[in-house]
Amino acid sequence: MARVVVDVVLKPEILDPQGQAIVGALGRLGVHGVSDVRQGKHFELEVGDEVDDEALARIADTLLANPVIENFTIRR
Amino acid sequence: MARVVVDVVLKPEILDPQGQAIVGALGRLGVHGVSDVRQGKHFELEVGDEVDDEALARIADTLLANPVIENFTIRR
Repeated sequence: MARVVVDVVLKPEILDPQGQAIVGALGRLGVHGVSDVRQGKHFELEVGDEVDDEALARIADTLLANPVIENFTIRR
Repeated sequence: MARVVVDVVLKPEILDPQGQAIVGALGRLGVHGVSDVRQGKHFELEVGDEVDDEALARIADTLLANPVIENFTIRR
C-alpha cells in the first residue's frame, strides 16, 4: 500500500473566479502581499502495489481531472 | 515573489463522502487496487517577500481552511 497525492489545477489560461474572490477577501481582511490565488483540488489515494504510474495517470485523467480545462500532477 | 502551495484536507476522523464516491466510481470503472480516497483543496498563492510563514499560517487558518474539521500544510 502506498499513499499517492494527485493535485488538480485549472490550466493557466482558464479564469479562476474562486481564486480571485480569495484575493479580494485577503485585501478586505487586511492581508497584503498576495497577488494571485488559484484554487484546485487535492486527492490522497491509498493504492495497492499493483497500481502503476500508467494506471494512476488514467485515474487522474478520467475521473479526478477534466483534461479540457485542468492539469494534474501525481506525487508518490 | 514566490509561489506557495497550501493543501487543505479533512481531518482523519471526519467522514469524506466525496472521496468514498470516487472509490465507488473507480470500482464501477474497472479500476482495482485503490482502497481509499480523501478529497481536499489545493491553493497556489503568489506572495511577496514580505509575507512570512506566520502570515501564511494565518491566511490558511482563517480563510483557506476550516480548522474545526480540516488540517492544512504549507509548502514554499
